[in-house]
Amino acid sequence: MANSKFEYVRNFETADLLLPNTWIVVRVDGRGFTKMCAKYGFEKPNDRRALDLMNTAAKVVVTELPEITIAYGVSDEYSKLVSTVVSTFTANYVYFWSTHFPDTPLSPPLPSFDGRAVCYPSVQNLRDYMSWRQADCHINNLYNTCFWSLIQLGGLDNKEAESTLAYQRTLAADKNEILFSRFSINYNNEPEIYRKGSVIFRDYELVDPNSHNTMLTIDSQAEPIEQSKSQKEKDKKSRAKARVVVEHMDIIKDDFWNQRPWLLSNKPGKFPKQT
Amino acid sequence: MANSKFEYVRNFETADLLLPNTWIVVRVDGRGFTKMCAKYGFEKPNDRRALDLMNTAAKVVVTELPEITIAYGVSDEYSKLVSTVVSTFTANYVYFWSTHFPDTPLSPPLPSFDGRAVCYPSVQNLRDYMSWRQADCHINNLYNTCFWSLIQLGGLDNKEAESTLAYQRTLAADKNEILFSRFSINYNNEPEIYRKGSVIFRDYELVDPNSHNTMLTIDSQAEPIEQSKSQKEKDKKSRAKARVVVEHMDIIKDDFWNQRPWLLSNKPGKFPKQT
Amino acid sequence: MANSKFEYVRNFETADLLLPNTWIVVRVDGRGFTKMCAKYGFEKPNDRRALDLMNTAAKVVVTELPEITIAYGVSDEYSKLVSTVVSTFTANYVYFWSTHFPDTPLSPPLPSFDGRAVCYPSVQNLRDYMSWRQADCHINNLYNTCFWSLIQLGGLDNKEAESTLAYQRTLAADKNEILFSRFSINYNNEPEIYRKGSVIFRDYELVDPNSHNTMLTIDSQAEPIEQSKSQKEKDKKSRAKARVVVEHMDIIKDDFWNQRPWLLSNKPGKFPKQT
Amino acid sequence: MANSKFEYVRNFETADLLLPNTWIVVRVDGRGFTKMCAKYGFEKPNDRRALDLMNTAAKVVVTELPEITIAYGVSDEYSKLVSTVVSTFTANYVYFWSTHFPDTPLSPPLPSFDGRAVCYPSVQNLRDYMSWRQADCHINNLYNTCFWSLIQLGGLDNKEAESTLAYQRTLAADKNEILFSRFSINYNNEPEIYRKGSVIFRDYELVDPNSHNTMLTIDSQAEPIEQSKSQKEKDKKSRAKARVVVEHMDIIKDDFWNQRPWLLSNKPGKFPKQT
Repeated sequence: MANSKFEYVRNFETADLLLPNTWIVVRVDGRGFTKMCAKYGFEKPNDRRALDLMNTAAKVVVTELPEITIAYGVSDEYSKLVSTVVSTFTANYVYFWSTHFPDTPLSPPLPSFDGRAVCYPSVQNLRDYMSWRQADCHINNLYNTCFWSLIQLGGLDNKEAESTLAYQRTLAADKNEILFSRFSINYNNEPEIYRKGSVIFRDYELVDPNSHNTMLTIDSQAEPIEQSKSQKEKDKKSRAKARVVVEHMDIIKDDFWNQRPWLLSNKPGKFPKQT
Repeated sequence: MANSKFEYVRNFETADLLLPNTWIVVRVDGRGFTKMCAKYGFEKPNDRRALDLMNTAAKVVVTELPEITIAYGVSDEYSKLVSTVVSTFTANYVYFWSTHFPDTPLSPPLPSFDGRAVCYPSVQNLRDYMSWRQADCHINNLYNTCFWSLIQLGGLDNKEAESTLAYQRTLAADKNEILFSRFSINYNNEPEIYRKGSVIFRDYELVDPNSHNTMLTIDSQAEPIEQSKSQKEKDKKSRAKARVVVEHMDIIKDDFWNQRPWLLSNKPGKFPKQT
Repeated sequence: MANSKFEYVRNFETADLLLPNTWIVVRVDGRGFTKMCAKYGFEKPNDRRALDLMNTAAKVVVTELPEITIAYGVSDEYSKLVSTVVSTFTANYVYFWSTHFPDTPLSPPLPSFDGRAVCYPSVQNLRDYMSWRQADCHINNLYNTCFWSLIQLGGLDNKEAESTLAYQRTLAADKNEILFSRFSINYNNEPEIYRKGSVIFRDYELVDPNSHNTMLTIDSQAEPIEQSKSQKEKDKKSRAKARVVVEHMDIIKDDFWNQRPWLLSNKPGKFPKQT
Repeated sequence: MANSKFEYVRNFETADLLLPNTWIVVRVDGRGFTKMCAKYGFEKPNDRRALDLMNTAAKVVVTELPEITIAYGVSDEYSKLVSTVVSTFTANYVYFWSTHFPDTPLSPPLPSFDGRAVCYPSVQNLRDYMSWRQADCHINNLYNTCFWSLIQLGGLDNKEAESTLAYQRTLAADKNEILFSRFSINYNNEPEIYRKGSVIFRDYELVDPNSHNTMLTIDSQAEPIEQSKSQKEKDKKSRAKARVVVEHMDIIKDDFWNQRPWLLSNKPGKFPKQT
């Protein structure tokens, strides 16, 4: 049959695997979003509708792909994992566009995204990655808030705003001072979604971190890769039942993680008692 | 600054490169499409609207990503390339859904896709890959046409249809015979889009393969990886101007390739003279 | 210059990296050693000279490549690391051959080896890998001791010995019984080098695992990837001074690891007090 | 059995494959050879004994690993291939040391090597790689011959020699002039092994490149990956019978390759007629 003669081309598919027992982070980036911000008139420095749309799409990804969200111990094909996340994100971004931008119809070329996956071997590496992103969010947002205040409220042009801020590049305190003295803006009163970013996770009953040594528990439970099949089924149902929430909180300090041991233990939490 | 302490996590991003000077094929697959076919009532064995929607989305990918379509010599990050193609495809699939299914609104969970990239070192490997896909398309469609005729026209149930065809598994002639004798269907009169699949490419003036040795030209031009910058600009403009077409033709035989030397030579063709 | 025209070929060198902060195991295997055992008349089931030669070569690898032995946190090019270990091992194997086989000169084709590297993300994964190897060593050696006793002492031929053992494949107790009842061999009195394999490491003062929680210390110390430069220098000197030993002990139980916290903590131990 | 509990660690072995139908080049480098040159008093700028020893070891690699030398179409595990080549090279380097350095016994730490493999998709890429190496060899050797002449014959110290040559960095003609005018050395009369490096290959009857279009033949024969088993056996025997030679010739021009079509066609040549 003709088929067999050509089928040798299958040998060119090189394996493309992620290391098991590591924390897999899939990072999704907008493609050419500077252009898109202009096309659809996104507000500067932050457009709440655009952020809400991103969170809506991300929330669906977490909801629809439970085996990815709690990634510890998952092994999968790299590009299949990445493209599945990116495709689900994109589909929901386009679909929910009109909900968040009711007066701005989408038109070709449509928004699109790319992605990549990184493996982190330890809990500390993963938390440092999350901390890095949140620290970055803070630094960028403080800069952008200053930059656009100088332009929108202070009447400066782009270059003037840039050089005002370049002069005092590394000093967060000075930027706070500019905002307060020139524009009476207290940066700490800015919405948390802008200052801290968004973290999306399944919500269970919070744990009191002082009641016992949470991290120790996590370490000892993280090791067994194998889980009984019935336990897996139970956990899957528990995850399907859990509420997926979008929060804007400090994820650098221990509190966030200690109160939510299910995030790093690969075990669902308890459901809050009904009242 | 807090930033620097966490930034070491960048070291975990392992490189993920495609071999230069090879033909990169990005394969896009629907995720869970059996379920989706049922949900939206796709027709069996082929739903023309669903195929047209796929082709519409694919055509946009070819149109918007010219540097990918003619992939020879392109080197890029694996997962970024794959996720860009999949994301662009998904965005257009969701966006153009209502054009092809005006009476069937889309609802969550939305259709999504995954992808992977494979590198083929030689023209022959690439053509064998394409031939493999078209041979596969023919084999599957002949089987499916028989299978659904036995059910829809012959009144058999799934199992009966399966066993009827299993008995004569490898014989294409027998399947043609079943279609003709039982249902008066001449398989060769079935639409080409079902029998041959779709191939999407930029269209230029066809070349007479007998006028000169096309393949030799291609081989000798394929080698130089470097191209002058102004030539690149010219080629880019030429590609942007070219019409992207969706065709259903034989791509196993040499004719298709010999008449369209631009497909394998990494050089745009000539525009047809205006009349 | 001619050089620049060709230098583009450098782009074909794809990156080939090991994930940081993981335990890298480089496994070295003899190539075609069945043939070599026959050529040089190695004794069955174990040739003490051949094992000692392997250990001599391995000891030099550990001694000469201190940054590899304690691999935690090391990132390096995959194939360079593997080929360096294999080359150092091979050079010493050939060089010290005459020490261990004074009456059997080496002749072409010379013994050679191949290797591969695997990354293990957690201490438990690494210990499970080591346990797997030692469990395998035990199972194989018990089988081989039986097999060759049946032949050398029991007068059976290869096939008879094989079928005797195949009949009771999975039962370790039965093999012990065969050795004892037929040949008065108490397997537990066989040399430990055959029963447990060899483990080669830097030796420091043993630690009493009951005096404090060793594993906890290890976990908390394993995280910081960065070390001050002067500390690195100190550690390097300490490792250079330490004695490299070849031992044959149980590495599946906790004792071995708890008494030698330097093996998993990436910190040299204390030198024993001189007396 | 204890074994099964630990065996899951096998999942950490990530695949590590070379792209099929490409030319695989394995590059072997000496580790710390500056130190070794000093330790054993290698002559500057070229030590003939050291080069001959390298060629002896390389010749054994080509002789013992016929499936690697003509690499076209071979697919194999990356690190296994690299480590096999490096190990065979190292074993022979240590073993034949005393043949080439009868008065200089080897002593620990022994010479060792590392390696890496690169895939080149086309004949042109491969030839460009070889040309790059030979061009590099010429440039380096001309520089080194000048440098050491200025020191050994001209009485300059290292710094003076360096600055003399830095001044006229890119000009080959000037270096030729220095050698001739100051030291009456005609660079073109220097031994070819120094000026052109060494190329090691199986030798068959040369082909007259004018008798037919050799390159065309090669191209068309290179495609079929599959070969009949009996043909493979024949080819293997032919390769085992062929003489492996060490030559120092121009491999940048077409002549070398056109006269030896067996090098790029993956087919053994003809044996010269006996006289």
